[in-house]
Amino acid sequence: MKPIQRDTKSAMAGGVKVNQRRLMRDLNAIGRIGIGDHGAVTRLVFSIKELRSRQLLIHLMRQAGLKIQIDAIGNIFGRFDGTDTKAKAPTVLAGSHLDTVIHGGKYDGPVGVIGALEAVRTISENNISIRSPLEVVCFVGEESSRFGFSTLGSSLVAGEVHAKDLANAVDQQGTKLESVLASLGITRRNLTMIKRDPKSLKAYFELHIEQGPILEAKQKRIGLVTSIAAPSRFRVIFKGRADHSGTTPMEMRKDALVASAHLIEYIEKVCRKYSSMEKGRVVGTVGAMKIEPGVINAVPGRADLSVDIRSTSAQAKARVARMVKDQARAIARKRNIAVEVLTIREENPVPLDKRLLRLTREICDQHRVDYEIMPSGAGHDAMQMAKITPAGMIFVPSKRGISHNPLEWTDPDDIALGTQLLMETMIRVANDNR
Amino acid sequence: MKPIQRDTKSAMAGGVKVNQRRLMRDLNAIGRIGIGDHGAVTRLVFSIKELRSRQLLIHLMRQAGLKIQIDAIGNIFGRFDGTDTKAKAPTVLAGSHLDTVIHGGKYDGPVGVIGALEAVRTISENNISIRSPLEVVCFVGEESSRFGFSTLGSSLVAGEVHAKDLANAVDQQGTKLESVLASLGITRRNLTMIKRDPKSLKAYFELHIEQGPILEAKQKRIGLVTSIAAPSRFRVIFKGRADHSGTTPMEMRKDALVASAHLIEYIEKVCRKYSSMEKGRVVGTVGAMKIEPGVINAVPGRADLSVDIRSTSAQAKARVARMVKDQARAIARKRNIAVEVLTIREENPVPLDKRLLRLTREICDQHRVDYEIMPSGAGHDAMQMAKITPAGMIFVPSKRGISHNPLEWTDPDDIALGTQLLMETMIRVANDNR
Repeated sequence: MKPIQRDTKSAMAGGVKVNQRRLMRDLNAIGRIGIGDHGAVTRLVFSIKELRSRQLLIHLMRQAGLKIQIDAIGNIFGRFDGTDTKAKAPTVLAGSHLDTVIHGGKYDGPVGVIGALEAVRTISENNISIRSPLEVVCFVGEESSRFGFSTLGSSLVAGEVHAKDLANAVDQQGTKLESVLASLGITRRNLTMIKRDPKSLKAYFELHIEQGPILEAKQKRIGLVTSIAAPSRFRVIFKGRADHSGTTPMEMRKDALVASAHLIEYIEKVCRKYSSMEKGRVVGTVGAMKIEPGVINAVPGRADLSVDIRSTSAQAKARVARMVKDQARAIARKRNIAVEVLTIREENPVPLDKRLLRLTREICDQHRVDYEIMPSGAGHDAMQMAKITPAGMIFVPSKRGISHNPLEWTDPDDIALGTQLLMETMIRVANDNR
Repeated sequence: MKPIQRDTKSAMAGGVKVNQRRLMRDLNAIGRIGIGDHGAVTRLVFSIKELRSRQLLIHLMRQAGLKIQIDAIGNIFGRFDGTDTKAKAPTVLAGSHLDTVIHGGKYDGPVGVIGALEAVRTISENNISIRSPLEVVCFVGEESSRFGFSTLGSSLVAGEVHAKDLANAVDQQGTKLESVLASLGITRRNLTMIKRDPKSLKAYFELHIEQGPILEAKQKRIGLVTSIAAPSRFRVIFKGRADHSGTTPMEMRKDALVASAHLIEYIEKVCRKYSSMEKGRVVGTVGAMKIEPGVINAVPGRADLSVDIRSTSAQAKARVARMVKDQARAIARKRNIAVEVLTIREENPVPLDKRLLRLTREICDQHRVDYEIMPSGAGHDAMQMAKITPAGMIFVPSKRGISHNPLEWTDPDDIALGTQLLMETMIRVANDNR
């Protein structure tokens, strides 16, 4: 693949520039916390490594002269006052998260947190006049890797966590998320205790790596996000019969794996059909699968598939999810085996703010930065924040589309360009009279 | 399913009868060794449980007055002399194995060992005159569950173990089969030390549960085995690319699981086609499969399938295995991913002795026992013994075809009928002048 052309002279020419060297230095400092073999980074939520990354951030925020507030769950807000010094003046918030998946990379999350910090530092040291206060935020627990619960900190800030959502959130050691929250003073009864008053916010921005291949394929350095796709996640369990692989004639088998194979093919076929539509693109994946007994000399009697269907169109997503479930039942009926469908999670796609998108477009156009208007296939904290304030997202390219992997990489020039765009957008919104 | 009609009066009417009560008592005594939850029996080769089952057998053989010989690996031979008392008189050997798979049943193996013991006990206590000596044998390690090496004891007796076969035989704890053998005095240099001189054998018989559904489906109580199918076992590893399930458009994916799904369907299709042929029936199974990374939000980048193709026709098996491998490569090429095919084991089908089969047929016909002439889909010790002496096998029905499972069950009347047939066959062969 041809590398993206980076004519840095034309990009965001003129005016104040973010400090790319400092930005990358701090990103790398965060990236060394929890690093293991092959550069794999693991900072699971509430682990010692993740706490250390938050402490480093607090240190960096202090150095930058920000006023720090930490809420009960540990979300960190670093405030920089504008000329509007009223205590209740709504703030322009920007950030992301510092926790990672198991064996992840160093950019998923930190780019948005350190990027926002760099933006505010640059504004501060250049004495750029802003009206509304700015805030840098680090949300706790965006990744679902530990408790199977994603965007935890931002969901609490948006007031979107309900007692029933916590029921199944348990980590591999058997620690319940509910117990961890209780130890922090957050109980079933006061789940809204850290909910942020929408009036205290003017907007939320999140700079993030794309985690997909589109920007690279289209040779664009910036992605402006229209909406965030949401998944329908469910399990399909085919229950056939385990038999001896040598003694059971083909026509007497109830092979749960062959049934699964038919469904896996169907999911690809129907999603490919839906992916050609401009509106309502749908992607579908069987990412995890367990077969039993799972030995070479036995016909699989049981297969448990984890299906993930995503779209930015709630309607298209629901339609495809329904088609897949119907097909699973049809396959089971045809092959005379049983099937069970269990819902894991059902979420709604989140549109981001159109006005903020237009604003970032204008800034890109001014600086002659080529961008791609695109949906986000992955979930982000912005998904939750959009429920209480206008939200916008800026993507920078992921090399070969790789994320959640030590090979995750984004060109430092692109990270700096995204940070520059984030800064200029924050300034514009902070000085906006509305 | 209609139960098999058991008119015990007509079956093997007249003459001496085996003692069904004693037979079942001893089978149950063996079945209690290594029994766990839900009646699952686990006696892995060389485990304490398996050694205890062998000790119980030695005790039972002594009670029956047999002369016991144990070879270096632990195969137990219990001899009953006939009128031909020459030291080198060829013997009529019958038996099977006492080791089991993990969480297996109580009949796979023991039916053949205790059945042979009961046959010889009955001959002995009824003073039935026989010419050739009879021997009851318990082979060590027929199941591959511990070391991935099947028919160990009988392979050594047949002189069919070669140094290179042992190279990859390691159990889950890392114990090498080679080290275990060395501790018993069997080294790479003297792998033929316990090989039995073919001249010392007149025939080998094995009574075994069918482990398949055919006898039950055809309402037959006895199966007479023509040949033993052999597997071609190989791994197919598709190597695509792991991607984020939300951000990667369908048309940019290299999904190793979807590629696998196409192959799994193909295997069923081609084997169903081959299963309608009378000669050269082939069964094919993907019994084990591992996908990576194996999480709900990632496109599978790698899939590792274990394929098992079996037939009693070496030619048909080779043809289908080649078709499956070719198809795997074609799928990979079409989807622009990599594929690797690794051979696990390549065995040849083993025809059993036609004369012995005719003899068992005659006995069944005399007693008006309805039988099925059939191949064995599973492997057995008889497969090895057939290489050094004429070998025959008698099957009794498996309820619902279930084996390698605590639900493994055969009607005691059928076990007794199989034992009766085994006894009468042994008498006929022992008194045969050839």
